[in-house]
Amino acid sequence: MARQLYELVGARDLRFSPFCWRARLALAHKGLEAERIPCRFTDKDRIAFSGQEKVPVLVDGDEIVSDSWAIACYLEDAYPDRPALFGGANARGIARFVNTWADTRLAPALVRLVMPSVVANHLDPADHDYFVSTREQRLGKTVAELRAERPEHLQAALAELMPLRQLLTQQEWVNGETPGYADYSTVAMLQWQRLVEGDELLADERRIREWRDALVEQVP
Amino acid sequence: MARQLYELVGARDLRFSPFCWRARLALAHKGLEAERIPCRFTDKDRIAFSGQEKVPVLVDGDEIVSDSWAIACYLEDAYPDRPALFGGANARGIARFVNTWADTRLAPALVRLVMPSVVANHLDPADHDYFVSTREQRLGKTVAELRAERPEHLQAALAELMPLRQLLTQQEWVNGETPGYADYSTVAMLQWQRLVEGDELLADERRIREWRDALVEQVP
Repeated sequence: MARQLYELVGARDLRFSPFCWRARLALAHKGLEAERIPCRFTDKDRIAFSGQEKVPVLVDGDEIVSDSWAIACYLEDAYPDRPALFGGANARGIARFVNTWADTRLAPALVRLVMPSVVANHLDPADHDYFVSTREQRLGKTVAELRAERPEHLQAALAELMPLRQLLTQQEWVNGETPGYADYSTVAMLQWQRLVEGDELLADERRIREWRDALVEQVP
Repeated sequence: MARQLYELVGARDLRFSPFCWRARLALAHKGLEAERIPCRFTDKDRIAFSGQEKVPVLVDGDEIVSDSWAIACYLEDAYPDRPALFGGANARGIARFVNTWADTRLAPALVRLVMPSVVANHLDPADHDYFVSTREQRLGKTVAELRAERPEHLQAALAELMPLRQLLTQQEWVNGETPGYADYSTVAMLQWQRLVEGDELLADERRIREWRDALVEQVP
């Protein structure tokens, strides 16, 4: 196959990276298949050809694209006759706000819930030391501290979801009447959280769960 | 004139309501004029004809529209030949996310900074008791407590601005290459904060200040 997606893999082949989920959701929306090539955190040499160190990396014929936002824009521009991920230049601009909100507000709230479970259950042994040391430094907290503070991190994450919660009482999708990349960039974060540590966070959030499940179901 | 905008007014005719600023920005974007009719918090009888108790209320010929989001949608649909506030159905859907984010995350962070100044400097005397009692109840804090906690509320507000700060390093406007309602629904909150209590919050945020000032300048 001429198209490959390099994506993060944990123990037992679990593919939990939210940024890789964004790329998978975007490919599925466009109806495009790709061979999924697993990379561990410490397998950076496998994607050295991309000129940088992070997954996802999409190889599409001669094109090499890294960064989930760049992949979405590449797919939209390279396959204009497939279903639109954005729906015009203004929609793309505003969708980038949603993408940035998910990166800068939602992801930091969720990582405080997710990290203890990743460390306990989902790391390839080769990745353990690298992951723990980089994440503890980034968050300024040990895994044990995060676990002890879980109740307050659950409340904080639910508070970050306020705009999504309220919006979904008013319209079907973040993107309007049909799902689009503004949905995918957000739901990818909640899919990551669910795969790693389950449904406690959204136990009382039926509308958000149904929205999430309908979106994720589109991915083969 | 056949078009009127009922808007909130404080002491010395200051028009600080962010929701009324949204309507003014939307009217200016469409190149539409409106007679601006001032209402105090306790002048609810002046807008009783609208069937509800909140400004802004737009009267456009026979049409009566309240709620800033509804006003934006009304203007977009009633004046399709004027410059677009959204730019398509998907852009409208996603802009509502930004609008909801501004309502549910940005405004609650800013109100903690703004309220002590509104009470001290900007209320019509007739509104004072109504305003203080409703706001203290809503926030669960006294005005004196909010003033004492100002340093932490400044930090919290700056943290809420993360998505906007990062996005504006990547593109000119929230709406993409031209400003639109996704910009207006956000900047209205920062214009409210500035009018009431000045530029301390954005002292080190030159890019956000320039974005704000360019948008607000469009309003006659």
